[in-house]
Amino acid sequence: MSISPDIDAAALWRDIEAMAVITNPDRPWTRRSFSQLFLDGRDWLRAAFEAEGLQVRLDTAGNLIGRLEGRELPDRVVMTGSHSDTVPDGGRFDGIGGILAGLAAIRAMRAAGYHPRHSIELVDFLAEEPSEWGLSCVGSRGMAGALGEAELALTGPGGETLAAAIDRIGGEVSRLDEARRDDIAAFLELHIEQGVVLERAAAPIGVVTGIAGITRIRLAFAGEAGHAGTTPMAIRHDASLALARFQLAMRDAALKAANAGEGHFVATIGLAEILPGGANVVPGRAEASIDMRAESPDLLARHVALFRDLAEDAAKAEGCTLAEFTRISNVAPAACDPGLRAMVAQSAAERQMATRDLASGAGHDSVFLSRIAPMVMIFVPSHDGLSHCPEEWTSPEQMADGARCLLDSLLKADAA
Amino acid sequence: MSISPDIDAAALWRDIEAMAVITNPDRPWTRRSFSQLFLDGRDWLRAAFEAEGLQVRLDTAGNLIGRLEGRELPDRVVMTGSHSDTVPDGGRFDGIGGILAGLAAIRAMRAAGYHPRHSIELVDFLAEEPSEWGLSCVGSRGMAGALGEAELALTGPGGETLAAAIDRIGGEVSRLDEARRDDIAAFLELHIEQGVVLERAAAPIGVVTGIAGITRIRLAFAGEAGHAGTTPMAIRHDASLALARFQLAMRDAALKAANAGEGHFVATIGLAEILPGGANVVPGRAEASIDMRAESPDLLARHVALFRDLAEDAAKAEGCTLAEFTRISNVAPAACDPGLRAMVAQSAAERQMATRDLASGAGHDSVFLSRIAPMVMIFVPSHDGLSHCPEEWTSPEQMADGARCLLDSLLKADAA
Repeated sequence: MSISPDIDAAALWRDIEAMAVITNPDRPWTRRSFSQLFLDGRDWLRAAFEAEGLQVRLDTAGNLIGRLEGRELPDRVVMTGSHSDTVPDGGRFDGIGGILAGLAAIRAMRAAGYHPRHSIELVDFLAEEPSEWGLSCVGSRGMAGALGEAELALTGPGGETLAAAIDRIGGEVSRLDEARRDDIAAFLELHIEQGVVLERAAAPIGVVTGIAGITRIRLAFAGEAGHAGTTPMAIRHDASLALARFQLAMRDAALKAANAGEGHFVATIGLAEILPGGANVVPGRAEASIDMRAESPDLLARHVALFRDLAEDAAKAEGCTLAEFTRISNVAPAACDPGLRAMVAQSAAERQMATRDLASGAGHDSVFLSRIAPMVMIFVPSHDGLSHCPEEWTSPEQMADGARCLLDSLLKADAA
Repeated sequence: MSISPDIDAAALWRDIEAMAVITNPDRPWTRRSFSQLFLDGRDWLRAAFEAEGLQVRLDTAGNLIGRLEGRELPDRVVMTGSHSDTVPDGGRFDGIGGILAGLAAIRAMRAAGYHPRHSIELVDFLAEEPSEWGLSCVGSRGMAGALGEAELALTGPGGETLAAAIDRIGGEVSRLDEARRDDIAAFLELHIEQGVVLERAAAPIGVVTGIAGITRIRLAFAGEAGHAGTTPMAIRHDASLALARFQLAMRDAALKAANAGEGHFVATIGLAEILPGGANVVPGRAEASIDMRAESPDLLARHVALFRDLAEDAAKAEGCTLAEFTRISNVAPAACDPGLRAMVAQSAAERQMATRDLASGAGHDSVFLSRIAPMVMIFVPSHDGLSHCPEEWTSPEQMADGARCLLDSLLKADAA
């Protein structure tokens, strides 16, 4: 190659701003998977991929894939990508930043006249965030052959099955096997850290060592509904109070676990509902979901058991019963590939960028890609560690530094 | 009159069962105000009223009124009635039982050839239960001239104003003054007790002394949203935990107040929401509404102040702020008319039915009627005190006994 490829930082930032416009205007930044806004975002991505000379297709699992054919090893793929969907009231970087950094890397290769040895693929994975169907990482599960009948039968708004929703946005569930891949030589994903480690260390690049396991639990307390005006305080069985008691007890236990010296541990109740839900009705039922994460599978397992005990205790203390405590998903921790980690660290070092090794507390499509290919993640800083909220922020320079590290790592993976 | 009027208990029970069918089949028994089911129920009531010879009209506040013209004092009205709407997942008696007992009383008068001195009116008041517009007793407020611009501007599903909703179901808000009444000589409402006093006393009739005041408060805690996987436990500002802490503290304070010897006191959080509401997002906001009731206005006022302090404390303890604590409605206690109470007690005594004097912890349309007319309520027993739930139950005999007491009391009021 005659010219050394480099990132066009201004073009990358223009792309970030262009995708940020495709949001629910009343709740920036919201682009929920399977929604019309999500499809609008994909139209923009398809056009942008094609403008950089990529061949664009949708695989049968609903992943949007742009491909640059390889010169020497066209049947082996160096893949990068992330996801374009968001949580409700999310940010402008979580997910889409990794796709657009990948696009910037391909733009740099093209501008420098670089012809890759392997085929290069840039992917927008379908529905990485937990969707209204109750499942995350839908597209990467599909690519790893981990999307089974139970998942496809989950129902979302209006009773639509996940299978029908995938078909609706252009996938083809009846031929889902064709989305499974065994041709990926390396997978690299750039993502915002969503934590404070890199900012506090003033390091622009995080070399991810592995991704924490995630367990999700659905629980419900059953009490006795009654009239809020006439049911005496002393004889109530208010299910919402059992939930309140459990929330506080679970938090106290999670704080202890985080300080136990066994690595990252968090537990969160982000979804809860009290029923029947009338201002003048004593709640007869309270439902919630727990999101638990740990680097140590053992720490996670011990706390599933502890949380069940705490839920039983809370129910009993409020004259209620624990009507449900079900593990609805369980994703094991995933380790990053040592060879790819070394390439990322070397790429950063060559550009005089400081790095930090760190684990990911968040789940990512990379978890599923690690089942079928060597995988590594590159983190860029998140201001104040904020994520999944409108305040989520990574600066133009930090994004460009991350894209440079991704570009050079892709070149190394292609040369390997 | 040649034949002494008496209640047709079988017809009354058939009516109860007929109205019970008009429910959301997935959530019996639900017939929410302003819904199509509510309008279906009113179609049934209109036909039933007309079958007993009543002239039926809708007043401009959206109340359905059946009228039997008086023989001697046609311009003075003896009124009875209640409401046909329900809470979500409510019962088969709360509200509709009072209308159908009134209908049974009119049927008895007609069968006996009784021609009343006063005009008799039977009313289905609009939206007694808290509606999706956040207001209760909409129709009786209108009749009492207590439906102002602030209330009419409240918005419900799809942003529809309460004024538009009243017009949609057949009222006429531009002529709301015409719904105001000054011609009511007496108002009598039969209702289920929604408590355990009558059942424990084995008394079929409750003579209501007065109705507890109700204050509703909307409150919100603000924290900081964040990613559930990456935001360390120790630095969170989880608004849902501030709400949980407040729920438990409020309940403890309400238990004490109920035992303070100052009469009935209850406080309930029946509606709550945590936001943004994602399984993997630390809640940045939690909203709830408090329903507080007391016979003593002073006890109520003291506890509004105490609950605000407890909410501030809960917010502080969780690193959050109390973003809102607003009294959204306040209805003063209402006393029943001594003369009408005596007629009810006398009517029961004449039929050898035991009575108990008791206060109502629940609010009723009678609160607003008491502002424009002498008012009394007759309670019938609720099995286990359950109400606002599918298990709500009053037996056919208990309903018939209540209707007999209502009939005789109406006859006494008409004779007065």
